[in-house]
Amino acid sequence: MSRGPRLKSVDLQIDARWIAPVVPAKVLEHHSLIVDKGRIIDLCPTARARLQYQAKQHHQLGESIVTPGFINLHNHAAMTLMRGVGSDLPLQQWLEDAIWPMENAQVSYEMVSLGARWSIAEMLTGGTTTFSDMYFYPDAVAEAALEMGLRCQLATPIIDFPTAWATDAADGISKTLALHDQYKHHSRVTIALGPHAPYTVSDETFTKLRTLADQLNLRIQCHVQETQSEVDDAIKAGGERPLQRLHRLGLLGPDFQAVHVVALNDDDIALLAETNSTAVTCPDSNLKLASGLARTRDLLAAGVNLCIGTDGAASNNDQDLLSEARNATLLAKGGSGDATAMTLQQTLQVMTLNGARALGLDDEIGSLEIGKAADMVAINLSDPFLKPLTDPLAAVFYTARACVDQVWIDGRLKAEQGRPAGVDVNALARDVQRMRKTMEKS
Amino acid sequence: MSRGPRLKSVDLQIDARWIAPVVPAKVLEHHSLIVDKGRIIDLCPTARARLQYQAKQHHQLGESIVTPGFINLHNHAAMTLMRGVGSDLPLQQWLEDAIWPMENAQVSYEMVSLGARWSIAEMLTGGTTTFSDMYFYPDAVAEAALEMGLRCQLATPIIDFPTAWATDAADGISKTLALHDQYKHHSRVTIALGPHAPYTVSDETFTKLRTLADQLNLRIQCHVQETQSEVDDAIKAGGERPLQRLHRLGLLGPDFQAVHVVALNDDDIALLAETNSTAVTCPDSNLKLASGLARTRDLLAAGVNLCIGTDGAASNNDQDLLSEARNATLLAKGGSGDATAMTLQQTLQVMTLNGARALGLDDEIGSLEIGKAADMVAINLSDPFLKPLTDPLAAVFYTARACVDQVWIDGRLKAEQGRPAGVDVNALARDVQRMRKTMEKS
Repeated sequence: MSRGPRLKSVDLQIDARWIAPVVPAKVLEHHSLIVDKGRIIDLCPTARARLQYQAKQHHQLGESIVTPGFINLHNHAAMTLMRGVGSDLPLQQWLEDAIWPMENAQVSYEMVSLGARWSIAEMLTGGTTTFSDMYFYPDAVAEAALEMGLRCQLATPIIDFPTAWATDAADGISKTLALHDQYKHHSRVTIALGPHAPYTVSDETFTKLRTLADQLNLRIQCHVQETQSEVDDAIKAGGERPLQRLHRLGLLGPDFQAVHVVALNDDDIALLAETNSTAVTCPDSNLKLASGLARTRDLLAAGVNLCIGTDGAASNNDQDLLSEARNATLLAKGGSGDATAMTLQQTLQVMTLNGARALGLDDEIGSLEIGKAADMVAINLSDPFLKPLTDPLAAVFYTARACVDQVWIDGRLKAEQGRPAGVDVNALARDVQRMRKTMEKS
Repeated sequence: MSRGPRLKSVDLQIDARWIAPVVPAKVLEHHSLIVDKGRIIDLCPTARARLQYQAKQHHQLGESIVTPGFINLHNHAAMTLMRGVGSDLPLQQWLEDAIWPMENAQVSYEMVSLGARWSIAEMLTGGTTTFSDMYFYPDAVAEAALEMGLRCQLATPIIDFPTAWATDAADGISKTLALHDQYKHHSRVTIALGPHAPYTVSDETFTKLRTLADQLNLRIQCHVQETQSEVDDAIKAGGERPLQRLHRLGLLGPDFQAVHVVALNDDDIALLAETNSTAVTCPDSNLKLASGLARTRDLLAAGVNLCIGTDGAASNNDQDLLSEARNATLLAKGGSGDATAMTLQQTLQVMTLNGARALGLDDEIGSLEIGKAADMVAINLSDPFLKPLTDPLAAVFYTARACVDQVWIDGRLKAEQGRPAGVDVNALARDVQRMRKTMEKS
């Protein structure tokens, strides 16, 4: 004859010193996340959780902060195999002399499959639970993501000239449609259109893509205004800035993701804001290729939906969204002369909820709200050298001592102690090193 | 009756997959460092070392790269206790509203002693074997450094108004002379003059410092042109740029270390080059306080002796010279539009040999050359997510996966597995957290 209250049986309870749910925009102390059937069903003080829930799995995390899973909005996952190729070359030379020749000779379904699995494993250990990819053989990336349990948007590469994957834009579009058909019932994979850049895609193709996006409710991701010379060349050739041209063609809008956007003037920023387009910054890649600093402070101030991407490891050289967010925050301040630009709560939102909005998934992921999928990251703040620790978000974003420990997707543990669950990392690493040797020989 | 060759008995042999000695500027593979009585006596292929030496201690490091110990040329070590104070404020407001009031209320010998030991422990775990500090109670910092075995230059703070340490510049100078006397026989501690900044030190004081530096062969370290407004204010007040004024007063020269130097025009850079002065960049601090980006590419191109500092943890928020070097390299490229700026060999030299030159210690440290002191860092590159690994310096500087493992100073092991040897880190961390609470209450 029990006299205590009946405890509700649930799948998972996570107690943490700090939880940053993004909505609301604050850090809760000594709270618990309650997860059942892959969904968050409660977020309450740990003292109350003890009286209400009985969990099959119970993680008592101590000095950790739990946040929503990170959303990496721009990557070329398979390029992890090209880590460090053409170091210290400027963007155009890097593409033309180093990257494109290697891609033309080496890209295959097998190469993309291995590279994507390797990149996904690395992203996972860094807290990324959802990513957007743009690369050849997107079907290989989809399979890798499904195998490892991440969510992804695959922006299929549409270019007017022949690539390793498609003979021209029309072929790319037809392959995209087939993929869309194949994956329309998979909850974790979305197919999007990935016109490579304004300088490799014609007006005609862009117009077709706009129509298609409207008909099938697809997102569009495109490299835009990555360098000043791209803008200068466009003006010289057609009298228009690339963003103006894309707007004239009807491309901009809430389903449009403009990646890099380093070379923006005030009108460009206003255009992105008015059209509710998404801007994606890739700070390390932009620095390393000497493209410059994106005006992230002004984009945020204008209300543009700002997101962060790692870009491929060939220009980064890692797939760690957390260190990317650190630099995005520092650059927003140092690049604008405004030390109050991009608060740490904004940084966290940029890499979670803003990413979800860009992908049209903000009802599902991006914050730790009741009813949403349980995509979560626990970041360990127990390293003694984080002391004195008075602001956990400052510890996460301004130091190199905070480290991702557990990662859950749909409430399932996908990484622990910074290692992906159920993946033979060392075997995969050996395959990767071997593949690179092959790629360099040819 | 032995028929083999006689092996020479030595103190220490370190075998590593890679060694970057800085001089020559390349990465050696499968080499060994031979150390005896604290000095490097050989650097040769491991296959040859086996036939020649018998070491009392023999480290077979495998997938690691060994470099000279890092030299952190600008810090306020004790400010580690103020980690995260006044986050997201611009420099002047950060100083006037957050930092200076806390310093005026809280700085004491005890506080500096604890803060310095904590900062030194953290620096050590990041590979720093020599640092320059500028803070009140430099005697407390000297004791902490001697206790923990690091080399340091203490630039004593000289300011025209009263501080927690000195009543005015004359008092600061007299205390500096006493310290110089006290430490002149210590091989690891050097006393230098630390005029705070052109805007807090008068012409008269600067002139005295120049005379003193010449008489006693002391170095001078000074914050200079950290922000554009500092330059604008100086021109408005006296018609001169701060570096022009310092040059008129005779301050610039091979013994002068100009810290921050964010707001430089071409004439400033020429002046630093002509006078063989040292420039010290603190990239993370400059970004966080929105001071801007130093023109490091132009400084290097002009032949200025460029070094790196972490600055205090209050504006950083860590003491990790390696992550600082990563951002220095990325910013040299991204800030100048030249992706070939600051090669990784240059980065390594900036944080080792250039630091030694600035301190006048380049006959002793800064490179792994025969005859120099055995200050060395082993960076572990065995993390599988560094694969494919084709360029070890790219792995060190462009990813967050490379981690400092062992650190030696004078051939003695001072850190292992990223933990300082013989230091009760957890006990110290508790003291630090407690001290911060006291500081916040008052």
